[in-house]
Amino acid sequence: MCPFAPRFASRMANVNPSVIREILKVVSQPDITSFAGGMPAQDLFPADELAAAAQAAFRTPEITLKALQYGPSEGYPPLRAAIAAQLAAEGIDLTGNQILLTTGSQQGIFMLAQAFINPGDEIVVGSPTFLGALQAFQGFEAHFVTVPLDAGGMKMDALARVLEHRQPKFIYTIPNFQNPTGLMLTEERKAEMYALASRHGVPIVEDDPYGDLYFGPQRPSAIKALDHEGGVVLLRTFSKVLAPGLRVAYAVVPDAIVEKLIPLKQCNDLHTAALTQVMIAEYLATGGLEAHLARLRTEYRKRRDLMLAAMDAHLPEWCSWTRPEGGLFIWVTLPSGLLAAPLLEECITKEKVAFIPGDAFFAHGGGENTLRLNFSNASEAAIEDGIRRLGRVMKAARPQLARS
Amino acid sequence: MCPFAPRFASRMANVNPSVIREILKVVSQPDITSFAGGMPAQDLFPADELAAAAQAAFRTPEITLKALQYGPSEGYPPLRAAIAAQLAAEGIDLTGNQILLTTGSQQGIFMLAQAFINPGDEIVVGSPTFLGALQAFQGFEAHFVTVPLDAGGMKMDALARVLEHRQPKFIYTIPNFQNPTGLMLTEERKAEMYALASRHGVPIVEDDPYGDLYFGPQRPSAIKALDHEGGVVLLRTFSKVLAPGLRVAYAVVPDAIVEKLIPLKQCNDLHTAALTQVMIAEYLATGGLEAHLARLRTEYRKRRDLMLAAMDAHLPEWCSWTRPEGGLFIWVTLPSGLLAAPLLEECITKEKVAFIPGDAFFAHGGGENTLRLNFSNASEAAIEDGIRRLGRVMKAARPQLARS
Repeated sequence: MCPFAPRFASRMANVNPSVIREILKVVSQPDITSFAGGMPAQDLFPADELAAAAQAAFRTPEITLKALQYGPSEGYPPLRAAIAAQLAAEGIDLTGNQILLTTGSQQGIFMLAQAFINPGDEIVVGSPTFLGALQAFQGFEAHFVTVPLDAGGMKMDALARVLEHRQPKFIYTIPNFQNPTGLMLTEERKAEMYALASRHGVPIVEDDPYGDLYFGPQRPSAIKALDHEGGVVLLRTFSKVLAPGLRVAYAVVPDAIVEKLIPLKQCNDLHTAALTQVMIAEYLATGGLEAHLARLRTEYRKRRDLMLAAMDAHLPEWCSWTRPEGGLFIWVTLPSGLLAAPLLEECITKEKVAFIPGDAFFAHGGGENTLRLNFSNASEAAIEDGIRRLGRVMKAARPQLARS
Repeated sequence: MCPFAPRFASRMANVNPSVIREILKVVSQPDITSFAGGMPAQDLFPADELAAAAQAAFRTPEITLKALQYGPSEGYPPLRAAIAAQLAAEGIDLTGNQILLTTGSQQGIFMLAQAFINPGDEIVVGSPTFLGALQAFQGFEAHFVTVPLDAGGMKMDALARVLEHRQPKFIYTIPNFQNPTGLMLTEERKAEMYALASRHGVPIVEDDPYGDLYFGPQRPSAIKALDHEGGVVLLRTFSKVLAPGLRVAYAVVPDAIVEKLIPLKQCNDLHTAALTQVMIAEYLATGGLEAHLARLRTEYRKRRDLMLAAMDAHLPEWCSWTRPEGGLFIWVTLPSGLLAAPLLEECITKEKVAFIPGDAFFAHGGGENTLRLNFSNASEAAIEDGIRRLGRVMKAARPQLARS
């Protein structure tokens, strides 16, 4: 008998295979049109530029050494400097803040959970919210206090009531083009959230993987830009704007906690891959990011438009959906008796099209009649055709609903 | 006031800047001859081959996609297959085991701590042992049960007494060319440790970053090779044999626990950098590793020989040291009243030479009269000259000892 098996720590009771991971395994066959994943468009990776950046990381003995030897836990200094310059240009004051590189934003979320959550601590999350964050917080035995979302993002009256009665460790929010809904926290609510949190002395974890993927005239603002007392940790990533396989993201962290977070990073994995950090610094130094982002925004916007048009044309009038102004996702709400999980089964077997049932994103259950569609990682033809097929299954499902 | 600062979880009381990290900062000036770090030789990185591997990771759209897109949490399949083939050739039976890629071995150690340690759990460690492991275990509020080492590695009579009276979560051991001592657990003791652990139902975490860096005729055996009941997790890394900046290592994990460890990996950082995994798979496919390892062994052996010869010539006769048969480190024991920490101060200020005082490697204190020397990452000239200067400071320190 494996002597490890009976020895798991208590916290592992909460660590289980993710529903989404299991679905993604099933729908990864090439004959399935999948709107299920949360992946950036593989046809839009700046592959030639990143190949050139990889070569640049070996161009002199000095830089090769930075790419191959152990590096600082907080990250590669030139990359930290380039990030700082970008943040300053956005009005995010780095005085009293430091930039810590992480192995993807998932690690940033994870380390904040590890650093702050005692078993039983409460964390405020949107309902729905990003499953990977729920899993990281559950892994340290957090309890959740959920705040509903409406068209303007997390509802501030509900948040205000929570903060009057509870002492959560922090508020976790994805203000821009939220996963899974695609919704924005309005600019007014960002200010309101910061003011509320500040008044109650509750910190905010601002997870912003999608903010650069806006379809409007400008990047939505960061809550962090309002913060001059160290009340916000901002998480950003190169996964959605360059390539997730590089596993490079960063946290903007108040000075008051950085002396704990650097040793924590060291304890977790010493540092994020040096080579991929050097590559990104080299890529940024070419000045190519802005043009690449402009292309991504144009293409993602085109795919969103196509998907919304196809939905308008093919989905039954009894379901509704968000019309996101950026990001990767559209969120669909079915009539309350129609369940997304069996609908997915039907979609896969009958029409070879897939999505993610929405209930996985709700910390306290619910949302069984919701689903998430990804528009970034599918071709234009697949979007039109896949949504038509989804509509067929939905229409056929309605009689079942009437029967039940 | 930063609202994060008073909110740290209890476990963070044990997370503090590492003494070694602070020393390494001080001694990183170019005018200091440092034997302090634990870094592989930067002049021996196979930089051209890794640059070629980086290019190979972009050679077709299919492989580029593997390098840049999200990948499986357990690791890049061709790399897992190449590792499995290597392990099979070493007699490590993979039946009932799986290979999980990690972001350096530090993450493997960390994830085992996270998966198995409840606050107050006991972990058996050598005295001394690797500081990074002590930090990872402390980060989950472990208590330590220490087992002393002699010339044959961890003492089995002491381990037997521990296992008779205690129920530790696991035994952590670095059997080959241990950090910090350079000592080997003898082949007899490996078998004895496995038998003892198996009899008491206690699992073993076998950390083996240095086993490929042997100076004798063949690779020392793995305890894992004796294991047919899932009692051993074996940790290995490409950090010491290729380059640590790639942050690619792996754990060989019993099937009985893999269904918890894969979601745990997902929760920590989704997966290890895909690009660097693809690079290593491409590098291994060239068949170049064996020749590179042969070169590393020859060069490291030469540096060890030089350092030992310089120590024989220049260090006072009243200190003793190990004569490691592989790895990166030599361990020095001073007379019991002579403290390594103030000696380091003298060495830095007077002779610009540095080492790591050994007390950091002892879970329960002690070892103030010990120090660790690294021989892998210094030139031949620096070794001879640096050891001469270390000897001068030591000889001058002896009168202080007599006075105290």
